[in-house]
Amino acid sequence: MPMIRECIVTTIDLAGAIHLAPLGIIEDDQRWIIAPFHPSRTLDNLRAVPFATASFTDDVRIFAGCLTGRRDWPLAPCEGWPVPRLADCLAHMALRVAEVAEDAQRPRFACDVLAHVAHRPFAGFNRAQSAVIEAAILASRLHMLPRERIEAEMAIHRSALLKTAGPRELEAWRWLGEKIASHWAADAAKA
Amino acid sequence: MPMIRECIVTTIDLAGAIHLAPLGIIEDDQRWIIAPFHPSRTLDNLRAVPFATASFTDDVRIFAGCLTGRRDWPLAPCEGWPVPRLADCLAHMALRVAEVAEDAQRPRFACDVLAHVAHRPFAGFNRAQSAVIEAAILASRLHMLPRERIEAEMAIHRSALLKTAGPRELEAWRWLGEKIASHWAADAAKA
Repeated sequence: MPMIRECIVTTIDLAGAIHLAPLGIIEDDQRWIIAPFHPSRTLDNLRAVPFATASFTDDVRIFAGCLTGRRDWPLAPCEGWPVPRLADCLAHMALRVAEVAEDAQRPRFACDVLAHVAHRPFAGFNRAQSAVIEAAILASRLHMLPRERIEAEMAIHRSALLKTAGPRELEAWRWLGEKIASHWAADAAKA
Repeated sequence: MPMIRECIVTTIDLAGAIHLAPLGIIEDDQRWIIAPFHPSRTLDNLRAVPFATASFTDDVRIFAGCLTGRRDWPLAPCEGWPVPRLADCLAHMALRVAEVAEDAQRPRFACDVLAHVAHRPFAGFNRAQSAVIEAAILASRLHMLPRERIEAEMAIHRSALLKTAGPRELEAWRWLGEKIASHWAADAAKA
């Protein structure tokens, strides 16, 4: 079974404009697969410029921020590589597209790993960070999942969050909670 | 709010015998707090030898293993430091006890961080690893939580696991599932 890693993927278009997206990339033997949804800027960018940088950050505000209209996170250049990384990340990977498997919903870009560079040492699992990642996934599937299920899962993740979070995790959780609440408010207004 | 990091804490007794324990250590400003339950070998060891090594590993089998009678994981020496680390870890911290706050249930050992050393770059959040950490916490609280709650939470974590796991995560999950099932089987035999 292939393993999936949640990270922030940076891509660029032909004019050099940078796009950040939180994505689960798939570890598949020696290659890593990026499978962006159709349509998306990550997909357009990878077709135009077949390079990506995966930033492995433990600042979960960046995941929550990209889902809630906060995409302006500090970037840093990667030496000898055209696509920048997050300035605040524990490590990054330079990924070059080697092969594309077309798919109507999610084309798969299998990438060679040209570099995997550490910037700061890992400091262990934090349950609140995991809770935010789960909440981010729920918040990106509001149209696909029943409200009761989302509420039940959020309650479980909130319990882990409140026991183990620092300020960044609490802020990320708040952004996602606001997004979920406003989705339901809009739903109620339609009904 | 203090942030909690899940890691494997190594301690030694006066004879040099090594003990591994999965613990959430508390990041408190410049110090990290180890709060072992009373009684425990980590507690006895820290009273005898006030040094600990926190290993930040992403091999969740080690967390699940320590809870299911599998404590024999490869260790590696730390340069200039008497307490070994896990051989397979992304990073480790050398912690020296600076202050002890006594408590009947969980004394708190506030430690200075003498070193935080990276060994391998972080490769992003993996939801299956988080699911195993949550299952490990549930499996360590079987006497404290109602069965229905444990089953409901395990079902949610299993769903993330099955979408994102590699072989190590699946093995760790199996060990914890067996522990939980045998606890309930023993309960049923008593009833």
